[in-house]
Amino acid sequence: MENERLLMLPGPVPVPERVRQAMMRQAINHRGPEFGTAYAECVGVLKECFGTKNEVYIISGSGTAGMEAAVANFGRGKKIASMVNGKFGERLRDIGQRYGDATAVDSAWGTPLDLEALAAALEDGAEMVTMVHNETSAGILNPAKEVGKLARKHDALFVMDGVTSVGGDEVLVDDWNVDVAIVGSQKCLAAPAGLAAVAVSERAWEQIVDDRPYYLDLAAYRKSGRKSPMETPYTPAVPLFLALAEATAIIREEGMAARIARHRKMSAAVRAAVSAWGLSMFPQIDAVSAYSNTVTAVKMPDGVADSALRGTVKRLGIEIAGGQDHLKGRIFRIGSMGAVGAPEILATLAAVQYALKKAGVPGVTCGLGAAAEVLDA
Amino acid sequence: MENERLLMLPGPVPVPERVRQAMMRQAINHRGPEFGTAYAECVGVLKECFGTKNEVYIISGSGTAGMEAAVANFGRGKKIASMVNGKFGERLRDIGQRYGDATAVDSAWGTPLDLEALAAALEDGAEMVTMVHNETSAGILNPAKEVGKLARKHDALFVMDGVTSVGGDEVLVDDWNVDVAIVGSQKCLAAPAGLAAVAVSERAWEQIVDDRPYYLDLAAYRKSGRKSPMETPYTPAVPLFLALAEATAIIREEGMAARIARHRKMSAAVRAAVSAWGLSMFPQIDAVSAYSNTVTAVKMPDGVADSALRGTVKRLGIEIAGGQDHLKGRIFRIGSMGAVGAPEILATLAAVQYALKKAGVPGVTCGLGAAAEVLDA
Repeated sequence: MENERLLMLPGPVPVPERVRQAMMRQAINHRGPEFGTAYAECVGVLKECFGTKNEVYIISGSGTAGMEAAVANFGRGKKIASMVNGKFGERLRDIGQRYGDATAVDSAWGTPLDLEALAAALEDGAEMVTMVHNETSAGILNPAKEVGKLARKHDALFVMDGVTSVGGDEVLVDDWNVDVAIVGSQKCLAAPAGLAAVAVSERAWEQIVDDRPYYLDLAAYRKSGRKSPMETPYTPAVPLFLALAEATAIIREEGMAARIARHRKMSAAVRAAVSAWGLSMFPQIDAVSAYSNTVTAVKMPDGVADSALRGTVKRLGIEIAGGQDHLKGRIFRIGSMGAVGAPEILATLAAVQYALKKAGVPGVTCGLGAAAEVLDA
Repeated sequence: MENERLLMLPGPVPVPERVRQAMMRQAINHRGPEFGTAYAECVGVLKECFGTKNEVYIISGSGTAGMEAAVANFGRGKKIASMVNGKFGERLRDIGQRYGDATAVDSAWGTPLDLEALAAALEDGAEMVTMVHNETSAGILNPAKEVGKLARKHDALFVMDGVTSVGGDEVLVDDWNVDVAIVGSQKCLAAPAGLAAVAVSERAWEQIVDDRPYYLDLAAYRKSGRKSPMETPYTPAVPLFLALAEATAIIREEGMAARIARHRKMSAAVRAAVSAWGLSMFPQIDAVSAYSNTVTAVKMPDGVADSALRGTVKRLGIEIAGGQDHLKGRIFRIGSMGAVGAPEILATLAAVQYALKKAGVPGVTCGLGAAAEVLDA
């Protein structure tokens, strides 16, 4: 729409009207039943998104605050194996190094995680494993189940960044032995940016450290979360909770299975177009990792400037993402998370296709039919 | 209005329609000129509210996150004198104890801070002083200028919680030698809850510690804040920034001097009614401390149950605050911060007066005339 950019990024994502409308409400007291009900409604649906019976707490802060809470409350002083194959894996490694003795189990960005090296690190005494489930910087979906199995075998805690998978792709925290899982509000949940939710296992609680941060002290969130009505320990970002309650109501209405199927279909449509254009996917996947179902990372064709490609798309009212850090100019990324449907995907693919042709990429044939066929299935 | 409670609390406060409307905007990319402009607009007005030329950063989190950021970035390992005469002073003391060697300089809640004991603590080597400017738990305004003078004399850093004074009452960070000052969005700024802003002096920057938290690492906020367009290091709560930009636009339109005068008039009107009712103010003030100009704390008349008083007021659609912790049932508090004007004050005083009479408090004469006279001046 005019004066609105269509954000096809790996977050933030377009927020449905009724979710934004929820923020218009006049201020309410956050120590009372109305707020407590909204909080509880969010948590009820989030448990389903996480695939867990564990308690879930909502922090007023970004996904990074949730990641720090996980490591600071349960990993301080621990030997940590930080799985890295992209930017957010590096962030978890950095946080691990602030609080514990974290060593990166490195793979090149966008290549499969090194499970043998992880096994060795665990043999070597790692007490916590951190992993990004859906690594948006590289468009790869990492094997949470396999990593969780290894971690549990060695009795290590498993911290999983599910910031961009929870609510969009299949996440099974309990089945996968995830001890602390994190999601951000502005990704697959299709709510505004500003909240993180954290699901914590009983095993993790048994290992909570004494020297905890204050604002991110999860023991305080647990205590307040168990009050009736539910509360947060410090003043919450009330409008964002009200928005998230509406966003989770939409998730409940759609149903998790249907929502996951929709996300998979959208990203499959993007991949179909990429293939028809003769371009290459950026990630290298193996039997246990996969292409992300919420963001597609594509190798930039030779000789095309990032600014030319994304600039053309932007002039058509659509924002897609470039590469981060050393991948700047080497890849482009199309997000397909949250509330987006066929119209947004088709518009984006048409704009990207036009930009590729305009940039003189040879052999770009129309990929819209292939994409539409997937969407129509 | 129907279905809306009038919140006359020491925050959260009613949020003007145009501020809430700003949140309705479709999601925008937080790495771009639109967000950067909104952030810069907020900061421009906040500097005026703080009375500072120092840089100001906005954290997506509550005032408590801002308080922790101040202490964690500049006070870790330091000897800290924590001035306490209410609940939030205690909170700063607790945070000080998590990061440094904090000792409380205690006064009873609602009594003047002990400046002699502070001088002794500084003589004894305290390197940081923490103080709550407007202690809402007790309705007292603490002497920031005097505390700042003492701290500077001994070359100690001065951290001031201005969560409930900045934007409503006079705050002069630079003149008062405040090194780190904090404000919350949902108080005098009349924006929704969920943001904290922090003003940091060059003196503080010279003492930044190496072992900093991650999400609250102020060096990261400084680095991102100096980019053009301005950014935050991690995903910000975008709708709350847009709301705060609108709230600060309102502050600019009103003008700080007029805004301070209005807050003083509103609280003076409340005090006039309290006096006419024959009730007593809770705080004991001296030559350098004063009654808060943003929240009025009143002793609960003998024999009146908190639930009876506030319950009656609530049935009339208005929420006022009770006492916290050991003051539960012993005081009640009327907030007058943010956007409130004469109608809200008169409605609240009429409801409280009715509740007092209904509860059988003897000798309650009509205080509305006295209040209206102040408002009409």
